[in-house]
Amino acid sequence: MAEDRCCFYMGPGTLKIDRRAFHGPIQQGVLQRMQAALPVDKRGIILLKGGDVQPVYTTDGEQLFRQESYLHYLFGVNEDGFWGALDVRNGRSMLFMPRLPASYGVWMGVIQGPDYYKAKYAVDEVVYVDDMAGVLAAAGAPCIHLLSGTNTDSGTEVQPPSFEGSDTLTLETATLFREINEARVHKTPGEIVLMKYVNHLGSRAHVAMMQGCKPGMMEYQAESIFRHFTYSKGGCRNQGYTCIAASGSNGAVLHYGHGGAPNDAQMREGGLVLFDMGCEYYRYGSDITCSWPVNGKFTPQQALLYNAVLDAHRSVIAAMAPGVSWAELHSLAYRKILGGLAAGGLLQGDVEEMIAAEVGGLFMPHGLGHLIGIDTHDVGGYGDGFPERIQRPGYKSLRTARQLEAGMIITVEPGCYFNPVLLLPAYEDPVHSKFLVKEAIQPFMAMGGVRIEDNVVVTETGSLSLTDVPRTVKEIEAVMAGAHWPFAGVRDTPVEQTQNSIAGVAAVPGIAVV
Amino acid sequence: MAEDRCCFYMGPGTLKIDRRAFHGPIQQGVLQRMQAALPVDKRGIILLKGGDVQPVYTTDGEQLFRQESYLHYLFGVNEDGFWGALDVRNGRSMLFMPRLPASYGVWMGVIQGPDYYKAKYAVDEVVYVDDMAGVLAAAGAPCIHLLSGTNTDSGTEVQPPSFEGSDTLTLETATLFREINEARVHKTPGEIVLMKYVNHLGSRAHVAMMQGCKPGMMEYQAESIFRHFTYSKGGCRNQGYTCIAASGSNGAVLHYGHGGAPNDAQMREGGLVLFDMGCEYYRYGSDITCSWPVNGKFTPQQALLYNAVLDAHRSVIAAMAPGVSWAELHSLAYRKILGGLAAGGLLQGDVEEMIAAEVGGLFMPHGLGHLIGIDTHDVGGYGDGFPERIQRPGYKSLRTARQLEAGMIITVEPGCYFNPVLLLPAYEDPVHSKFLVKEAIQPFMAMGGVRIEDNVVVTETGSLSLTDVPRTVKEIEAVMAGAHWPFAGVRDTPVEQTQNSIAGVAAVPGIAVV
Repeated sequence: MAEDRCCFYMGPGTLKIDRRAFHGPIQQGVLQRMQAALPVDKRGIILLKGGDVQPVYTTDGEQLFRQESYLHYLFGVNEDGFWGALDVRNGRSMLFMPRLPASYGVWMGVIQGPDYYKAKYAVDEVVYVDDMAGVLAAAGAPCIHLLSGTNTDSGTEVQPPSFEGSDTLTLETATLFREINEARVHKTPGEIVLMKYVNHLGSRAHVAMMQGCKPGMMEYQAESIFRHFTYSKGGCRNQGYTCIAASGSNGAVLHYGHGGAPNDAQMREGGLVLFDMGCEYYRYGSDITCSWPVNGKFTPQQALLYNAVLDAHRSVIAAMAPGVSWAELHSLAYRKILGGLAAGGLLQGDVEEMIAAEVGGLFMPHGLGHLIGIDTHDVGGYGDGFPERIQRPGYKSLRTARQLEAGMIITVEPGCYFNPVLLLPAYEDPVHSKFLVKEAIQPFMAMGGVRIEDNVVVTETGSLSLTDVPRTVKEIEAVMAGAHWPFAGVRDTPVEQTQNSIAGVAAVPGIAVV
Repeated sequence: MAEDRCCFYMGPGTLKIDRRAFHGPIQQGVLQRMQAALPVDKRGIILLKGGDVQPVYTTDGEQLFRQESYLHYLFGVNEDGFWGALDVRNGRSMLFMPRLPASYGVWMGVIQGPDYYKAKYAVDEVVYVDDMAGVLAAAGAPCIHLLSGTNTDSGTEVQPPSFEGSDTLTLETATLFREINEARVHKTPGEIVLMKYVNHLGSRAHVAMMQGCKPGMMEYQAESIFRHFTYSKGGCRNQGYTCIAASGSNGAVLHYGHGGAPNDAQMREGGLVLFDMGCEYYRYGSDITCSWPVNGKFTPQQALLYNAVLDAHRSVIAAMAPGVSWAELHSLAYRKILGGLAAGGLLQGDVEEMIAAEVGGLFMPHGLGHLIGIDTHDVGGYGDGFPERIQRPGYKSLRTARQLEAGMIITVEPGCYFNPVLLLPAYEDPVHSKFLVKEAIQPFMAMGGVRIEDNVVVTETGSLSLTDVPRTVKEIEAVMAGAHWPFAGVRDTPVEQTQNSIAGVAAVPGIAVV
């Protein structure tokens, strides 16, 4: 029973995660980094503040609670109002729980005590938050390590949390942020299995959208298929980010789907869609993009655009390995996309000159991909000792410019868009305009764009995509015509790409679909 | 085109709302109340701050934007970062829009100017937020009316918003909160049509859950059916509140379904479910609860419990009319529920004595219902000049103790629960215990509870439920066995209850399903 209680599980057919098996190696990894960074007499206790329930404006409505990323990473606590601590000296783990009012038992559920949470979260001790400072002081550690730094995707300052009694303790903020971020960059085998699970589910849901797609449907009806599939079949209540269900020219708007542009257009016969959706389980999310023709059949122009992006996608995955620079792969993607457009007559001149002249950023203004895990844009992309952000169009949107390392999971998401905001000024630009064949580009302007996105693990020797959706024109057309996916027979995928499969990820005891 | 642009619409089969037709009468209502409350020389300009996008903790992830309730009420603006103003002297309407960075055009969509929003939101003028203080000053009004007060459901202070240049204006905070709340209490015909729409969709989705329900399913799989149905068929991306999909003893937990209790139990053969879910369209939400046996067939004990609550539900709706005290209807619900339990042998003694002894609150610790509209727990329940909160068990949870007035929409949601947190101490209580027949109650303890909830408009002469789901034991069993709902033939509902139908709400030009 205690064994089962410490599992996260959403029922038959979903991933059962033994928290000890999942968070044990994560805690060990963080401890090792902290121990390596600190002399023995400076090793104290890591303290993290979990999330609180957020109200909807001034009403008594509440946002659905999702745990704060760092606390989830170390402890996997579902409930709000918790703090967590890990002693760098000896690995001892503690949770601090809120003292709930008696009314909680009527409105929210049975009030559990420390022993319940100690078993559920497989920690060494659980006490109430109001006893936290005293318990920490009694532990006799030289200091309390707190988060402090800047999230390099949002630019937000991560402030050390304040708490009652903190003035009685020695607080240290120079180490934890860097070390825990670096731990999060390198996924454990358990994290990789979990990311495989959300990719497997997300991939199947993309296939369900492909097969449910028809002209006249509203974009959000596809979003609803995705959400229903991943929730009802996989227990994914949330998505890591707002679903992007863009059709036609909306495909050129990179973060379409937000509150002001809520996937509310009708999908037109003859147009393309660009669907960027992932599902979240145990706070880890996938991030998958597929592009296809609404009516199931690519026009020659659509296929030209699509294949240019697919070439970039596959070339990048094939080139990924430890030591390879992500910024150079971004250039490789530009080389393939611009080369494809040039072969199709939309561009003229030398591709390397185009890249030097920043033509790449006109068609793909975003970065090639980002670290992914608990956060869709996961932490650790920039920092002391790593390459700085490159101040060039396109490149400046890269969320990391690091060299790849084994254990990273990163999205590979080249795209090519026809956005008048970028192209109309380029026609007037003396440098850009000489590469652009305006009359050949013009028929593509209504097409929006194509993006192809997998979530890829860097392995010791190369890479492994966790995503498994139809990718070639032939595969997509077959599946949209009703073919089963994955194909029972031999796929028409090149042999070197058969790694693009959810198979092949090593099993981890205690973490499995049951 | 301009006519179409000022409509909110999610595509074929969904409700098309002409904002002028919807918000015009709302603005008029607020203006009339403000004018009645203020002498001519104190009439200034109402100023409301809309919502901003909220980040997910310190990441660059964003919460899906939902507009702040008061701004939505007066103006129906979808986008974040807006302010709205309404001149009490002459009804002139203004919006203040954010100045967006050029990168918005790449990431979020086409940057529109003031003329676009002027047409979209049918207002007299749109200027940028950074010009707001100057424009307000130039209008020469004696003051700016700002919100200030306490939300009586959350207890949160609604603070007047701060803005640059406010020190050059005369700010007035004593009037707007009270008057706009009172306007929100009294729904316009357009609001009633919209509430009918979300009730119609929500009702159909509850029927879909009933018909999809089977032993062994996970609770969240039913939630997913609800969300998919209301989104894909009705364009409802959000719910006004977190879905409650409770089975078995979870039914006794009033706000089950939250992040710490995420509808993750398996629905067992022989048990009851209590599903409390509503859908949101144009920021107005329904709030509907149905209870039924997982296997489609009530046991005699389940039927006893269910019919006690249904008796309360129907008796309250039948008694609703202008001038009737909501607190007295709460007592009526207790009378019917306790009477039903007594008839079934679970209680002994006189029902009026039980009510006086607060036995009602042991079985129904929540209020009979709440005002509903933009907010699930809509504003205006308490305030100066209205009855104060009653400090008795059960009654103290009432979100209003007012007399009913025509145009109010209020939930009618009697329930009866078997929660050990309340009943175990009651067995030891000298007053309570004499009414409780412990050995007769015991077999009900695992049943959780039953709640039956409609959204009901108070009319000039009585009431009209906007909800239309199977309610009798016979209806539920028939629908779960596959019968169509609503029944084609004569319903087995008493004639006086045929008002419980979505028909009968007057049409409003400019607001219709197309």
